[in-house]
Amino acid sequence: MIRISLDLMGGDFGPEVVIPGAAKALDRHPDITFIMYGMKDRCEAILGKYPKLREKSVFHECDVAISMDEKPSQALRRGRYISSMWRSIEAVKVGDADVVVSAGNTGALMAMAKFCLRTMANIERPAIAAIWPTLRGESIVLDVGATIGADSQQLLDFALMGGAMARALFEIERPTIGLLNVGVEEIKGQEDVKEAGRLIREANLESLEYFGFVEGDDIGKGTVDVVVTEGFSGNIALKAAEGTAKQIGAYLRAAMTRTLLARIGYVFAKGAFDLLREKLDPSKVNGGVFLGLNGIVIKSHGGANVEAFAAAIDVGYDMAKNGLTQKIENDLKKYHAKRQPPIGPEAA
Amino acid sequence: MIRISLDLMGGDFGPEVVIPGAAKALDRHPDITFIMYGMKDRCEAILGKYPKLREKSVFHECDVAISMDEKPSQALRRGRYISSMWRSIEAVKVGDADVVVSAGNTGALMAMAKFCLRTMANIERPAIAAIWPTLRGESIVLDVGATIGADSQQLLDFALMGGAMARALFEIERPTIGLLNVGVEEIKGQEDVKEAGRLIREANLESLEYFGFVEGDDIGKGTVDVVVTEGFSGNIALKAAEGTAKQIGAYLRAAMTRTLLARIGYVFAKGAFDLLREKLDPSKVNGGVFLGLNGIVIKSHGGANVEAFAAAIDVGYDMAKNGLTQKIENDLKKYHAKRQPPIGPEAA
Repeated sequence: MIRISLDLMGGDFGPEVVIPGAAKALDRHPDITFIMYGMKDRCEAILGKYPKLREKSVFHECDVAISMDEKPSQALRRGRYISSMWRSIEAVKVGDADVVVSAGNTGALMAMAKFCLRTMANIERPAIAAIWPTLRGESIVLDVGATIGADSQQLLDFALMGGAMARALFEIERPTIGLLNVGVEEIKGQEDVKEAGRLIREANLESLEYFGFVEGDDIGKGTVDVVVTEGFSGNIALKAAEGTAKQIGAYLRAAMTRTLLARIGYVFAKGAFDLLREKLDPSKVNGGVFLGLNGIVIKSHGGANVEAFAAAIDVGYDMAKNGLTQKIENDLKKYHAKRQPPIGPEAA
Repeated sequence: MIRISLDLMGGDFGPEVVIPGAAKALDRHPDITFIMYGMKDRCEAILGKYPKLREKSVFHECDVAISMDEKPSQALRRGRYISSMWRSIEAVKVGDADVVVSAGNTGALMAMAKFCLRTMANIERPAIAAIWPTLRGESIVLDVGATIGADSQQLLDFALMGGAMARALFEIERPTIGLLNVGVEEIKGQEDVKEAGRLIREANLESLEYFGFVEGDDIGKGTVDVVVTEGFSGNIALKAAEGTAKQIGAYLRAAMTRTLLARIGYVFAKGAFDLLREKLDPSKVNGGVFLGLNGIVIKSHGGANVEAFAAAIDVGYDMAKNGLTQKIENDLKKYHAKRQPPIGPEAA
């Protein structure tokens, strides 16, 4: 049984998407139970429409919902202890849930998660990991925006955490890891990235295989299982790729409706186009994973539809089922035990 | 008449691509004359096949060619004053050419260009600007890899230079400029990016309209004419987008050959696919522009084919014809004249 905590009020649509999304995920994974947090008047009627889900869920009433444009500091002031977002996270902290899923605003969610769950021992900063579809399947890219900038030790932490997530998600024993870098010869990389490469190589980690530097186009190729970078460039890479996918989708639609022949061709090839659309459908890959906290937090896109929110729950389900937090803790312990002399996180 | 200097030895294929590319560009712009630098035994026979081009060109023999994997420092040591790369740049410096085009290695080309042409007054660092196809046409993105990191004053310089390039390339009077940033609310941007936003706003520039922050997906949307960022994230954005385009191309090919119906559909819609392919063809958009030097340097992709190298020459032609260097100089002068009290570049 996997116990999933839900912030019903998160996202652009709140319970209208979260509840049907949960119902869909339950169909796929009948061993889920839900703990739900939301405003009674907005949630009760919707929940009533899903009796099977209702039966597997405990609903907790909250009077405060965090809005999508609220600043993290304000969200913390106003919503700590009482908002649906906070309480859904707290359910993980107190052990009532194995994972929390929210489509609420990223900044507030991260701030509350950090405040409530705290970062793991030896981890200075959490990261957000994205699951990126590639030509070879899927890869993990982190950090895609939890913080800006990262020193070499933090990049090594990201590599460890990303490696643990790859093992949990892809069920491979020793995932390959690459550090995102630029390919202009003269300047080959930031000092921190180079230093991180040295650290990872020297650490000789059992849990992952260090590939070396990769460039932006290696992400889509699937050159490595895990791509590590700091949050500014990671976020920009993710958004640039999303933008390009949308752009090509628009070109394709325009091309296929331009002439009669193209429209006829489209009818014949509709099955192929449907397959392609599915491949490019952002709702199939949804769910950023917060790594480095004492508990699993899944962030769904705020604009997620029902299918996409269900996909975020799927990610949470997999992460909980495969013991993501334990895997990360073990890998961190092994790494720090090997370091001679023992160094505290402040030495990073 | 536009006088273009060519490094015949640059790129993965050297004169085999550069010379036919020049012939193609000449067909499109009969007012070009070329000054060419290369090894006699590799270039002469090829040049002989293009009598029209031969007639409009002066060929200079060089014994040294910079290789694609040579380190900038080594290239400078070995090739200064004598290599085809150096001499083709020098032709711009001494006023024999209006612009130089090379497919040689980026690091060496930038090092030699900086050493030979020097940076403009008040510009600390040159940038590489890419022309990015968007849903609304084309945008300029800089820096895509000349240097790593940029402080607020350097980002403002990039904005000024990118704005001047947009006016030269797109012939619009007051291009819109956005600063690339991340959208996670809690951390909304690097300090340097925020500070650059303040500087650009306060400078109240005649030559450009400051839009504000943009995110990675705004590039492909064409939200602004010029996207400004530092070279690490700019390079990663560019490569991530290229990777995504290739990835979708591969999906599309696979989808269209999978079933008989899809293949029939493909035959009907072939015209549409050809159009799409053209839209996505990287050889149609080739040519990074080095900005901030006392002269125009165009960098073609090393792997460029004939069509792509011709496209890089086209970019150089447009830049020279529209007086890019003068436009940048004027904009910089106006900006620095307005600053009270006058501040030298060291105060940045």
